[in-house]
Amino acid sequence: MARKVGEKNERAVIEAIQNRRSVRRFRKARLRPGVIEDILEAGRWAPSGLNNQPWKFLVLAGEKKDAIGVFTHYASVVKGADAVIAVFLDHNLGYNRDRDCMAIGAAIQNMLLVIHAKGLGGCWLGEIVNRKNKVSAFLHMPKNLELAAVVAVGVARTYPRRGRRRALKKCIL
Amino acid sequence: MARKVGEKNERAVIEAIQNRRSVRRFRKARLRPGVIEDILEAGRWAPSGLNNQPWKFLVLAGEKKDAIGVFTHYASVVKGADAVIAVFLDHNLGYNRDRDCMAIGAAIQNMLLVIHAKGLGGCWLGEIVNRKNKVSAFLHMPKNLELAAVVAVGVARTYPRRGRRRALKKCIL
Repeated sequence: MARKVGEKNERAVIEAIQNRRSVRRFRKARLRPGVIEDILEAGRWAPSGLNNQPWKFLVLAGEKKDAIGVFTHYASVVKGADAVIAVFLDHNLGYNRDRDCMAIGAAIQNMLLVIHAKGLGGCWLGEIVNRKNKVSAFLHMPKNLELAAVVAVGVARTYPRRGRRRALKKCIL
Repeated sequence: MARKVGEKNERAVIEAIQNRRSVRRFRKARLRPGVIEDILEAGRWAPSGLNNQPWKFLVLAGEKKDAIGVFTHYASVVKGADAVIAVFLDHNLGYNRDRDCMAIGAAIQNMLLVIHAKGLGGCWLGEIVNRKNKVSAFLHMPKNLELAAVVAVGVARTYPRRGRRRALKKCIL
């Protein structure tokens, strides 16, 4: 017997997965207290190989957040967001680079889904990782922490319509 | 203004994220038609760098599914599951190995969340990737497809209680 979950709950999860979008334009509005903690909490519950949980999160707001905009072409996303979450791979916890990266991807996806489910906007910034050493130096990160991604969070100015994906039949072997 | 989502929908997403577990013991029960498609559909909607969608999915059931059990210590999970989804990184679509792995991790997490939201059980098998070349040879996969993970799906025999994670404060820098 499958667990009883309820169709409405299933639909809510599927809705979040399918309608979540990358939000790159934000209103000048502050996130309510506790929102960032809820988002990080979701990241923390991701699965990982051997349950090694190789992620570390650094929340940036205000001037320090804006300052890391110089390391990416998406400075406007960083500046417009109310906060950004820098996600690091902790080499002291890692066991297999590919699987650690996949686990971090799962953690980021959890965070993006909760951002969406709260009616907020989020954007996964990967391009800034091209200058990960400069970002880490600016933030005085220890050597064991490697920048994996930055997630921008805020109140969406406009919430984009559903994105584009390759048809399912083209994803199936 | 944040989009209106509804607290119930937010709670449903958070519930799935926090209570999803790795299910390794399954009942002898068939998945209903359309269930696997719903799961793959969730995978397809994951975000990826430059929207490159570097994933390919191969669904295995019956004897062919059971046969890949020889490539993992978790043969009992593969054999007990009604189906497994082999997830491949398509090098013809990839652009950055770390980010492609993260995107695939996001796609797998989407699938695991929908499996959970349907009241079913899923397990992310990473260890089988240690023998990825043998698995690919057995399945006659072309060279551009690299095994990234296998997701087992079925009706849980028992649904484990919430897992263990490092405290949030230990994840935050």
